[in-house]
Amino acid sequence: MSDVLIREVGLRDGLQLVKNILPTEKKIKWLNKQSLLNFKEIEVTSFVPKKVVPQFFDAKIILNEANKISNLTSSVLVPNLFGAKKALELNAQKINYVLSASESHNKANVNKDVNSSINELSEIVNYNRNLEKNSKIGVAISTAFGCSIEGEISNLKVLNLVEKILKIGVDEITIADTVGYANPKQVRMLFKKLINLTDNLKIFAHFHDTRGLGIVNVLTAFDLGIRKFDSSLLGLGGCPFAPGASGNVATEDLIYLFNSMRVSTGINLEDLVILCKNISNFFPNEVVNGRILSAGIPKNYY
Amino acid sequence: MSDVLIREVGLRDGLQLVKNILPTEKKIKWLNKQSLLNFKEIEVTSFVPKKVVPQFFDAKIILNEANKISNLTSSVLVPNLFGAKKALELNAQKINYVLSASESHNKANVNKDVNSSINELSEIVNYNRNLEKNSKIGVAISTAFGCSIEGEISNLKVLNLVEKILKIGVDEITIADTVGYANPKQVRMLFKKLINLTDNLKIFAHFHDTRGLGIVNVLTAFDLGIRKFDSSLLGLGGCPFAPGASGNVATEDLIYLFNSMRVSTGINLEDLVILCKNISNFFPNEVVNGRILSAGIPKNYY
Repeated sequence: MSDVLIREVGLRDGLQLVKNILPTEKKIKWLNKQSLLNFKEIEVTSFVPKKVVPQFFDAKIILNEANKISNLTSSVLVPNLFGAKKALELNAQKINYVLSASESHNKANVNKDVNSSINELSEIVNYNRNLEKNSKIGVAISTAFGCSIEGEISNLKVLNLVEKILKIGVDEITIADTVGYANPKQVRMLFKKLINLTDNLKIFAHFHDTRGLGIVNVLTAFDLGIRKFDSSLLGLGGCPFAPGASGNVATEDLIYLFNSMRVSTGINLEDLVILCKNISNFFPNEVVNGRILSAGIPKNYY
Repeated sequence: MSDVLIREVGLRDGLQLVKNILPTEKKIKWLNKQSLLNFKEIEVTSFVPKKVVPQFFDAKIILNEANKISNLTSSVLVPNLFGAKKALELNAQKINYVLSASESHNKANVNKDVNSSINELSEIVNYNRNLEKNSKIGVAISTAFGCSIEGEISNLKVLNLVEKILKIGVDEITIADTVGYANPKQVRMLFKKLINLTDNLKIFAHFHDTRGLGIVNVLTAFDLGIRKFDSSLLGLGGCPFAPGASGNVATEDLIYLFNSMRVSTGINLEDLVILCKNISNFFPNEVVNGRILSAGIPKNYY
């Protein structure tokens, strides 16, 4: 068993902001190659309407491929009951339902108010409960620290949401700093309280490196007991409100952080860097935000 | 009084690896503009031989300009007694003498073994003591966490050096992660011990972001009581052994980190971003490694 679980979200959050559609066979190659490196969980695609995010036109195919891989928990993002039903029909092992802490962001992202999103979550949970084979249900709280429309988001708002979600009953909650507003002080305050509300292993932390604080926020959460983190290969992803800004914390940098501190990830950094180089060839027009790829692994790195 | 002191080293460590020589008038403009933003200390130039680093051909002029600025502590880097004497003659307020924890790096950088460097430090301290007007003497320990030639550097090696340096008697010691090898675990172990050896205000921490851990290392040191940090505007600088790799922690990202946590720096981030934009025009061929410049300041940021 590793000390931490790194969930790869590049195929979902990363690709969401990549301009060109990545061909299906390349997505499948990425998925298979990365799971071979001992990644235990990958968010593989998103069941959003094609007209909203054309990148995920092949969600069904990708999910089917992911289901063939043994020793992998795959999750898919869903924005509503419709997407959830589709994913559950296709035997998704885990669906990750997204809502925002910011009213304005929720409206912009899923076109409803936060209360309606919470009600829809109840419907999804009930729907899943009545199925023969239950899938795991996760909820991602977007803009949990700040929002490009509303500015800073208070911890209280997030904690209220978490209480409602826990009452409905889900398997996990992802706290997402969607646009890179979090700072370590805010992270410390929020996660301290979160850990009092629920089991630390129910929580995923999802940080972006938009303003350079991705890695420090990860370690701050880790120091408080959080053990599950999202990240994206090459730091793919970004922020639609800040073109050119960096996106998700880069998986390779996160693995480097933990491995260098002797916190076991189960992932070999050298193998990962090779994968990164291969995958970066898929994206000749994207900026690689991860640092370890350009700097190289330190000499005598164990 | 601010909670932390950020020493700008862009004009020294940043420029050291910039290929084109920045014209003297631009250096002076940068120096003056940045000190107007309430930066209390700036490392302004380096008294190294011109044939080694042509960038600092104008060290004398720059130091003279720095000495005209009120409310600014300016320091200059010196690699040997010869450079120290020159800087002291020119009324440097502070000289920062550099040696390496790694024998091989010391040899490559200043062409002597570490013991000889320590002996030369004694000579510099004695020379300065006998002057009418004493300047402050700092020592920078390069490659304090790792070295591109030798790999990881043990804390013990650094602590031994620190003890020797303290015995000689200096005003401050800079612990420098010259090539971005440090990780937070290593930082925690080293700084815990350092703080037992000497006053925390005697220590500067100098981190590079080569492998993405610059900011997290800063906060780790801060949490242990370190209050003085080096950084470079735009994240200028780099690593001669890893072309393309990022360099010093970016000043603007460091200010963002602390300001966002309500740790006072005395610096207004909006003004700093304007300066960054102006200075970045001096370097059309350099990659800006700081994040805040491309991402922008968060909405409703106080």
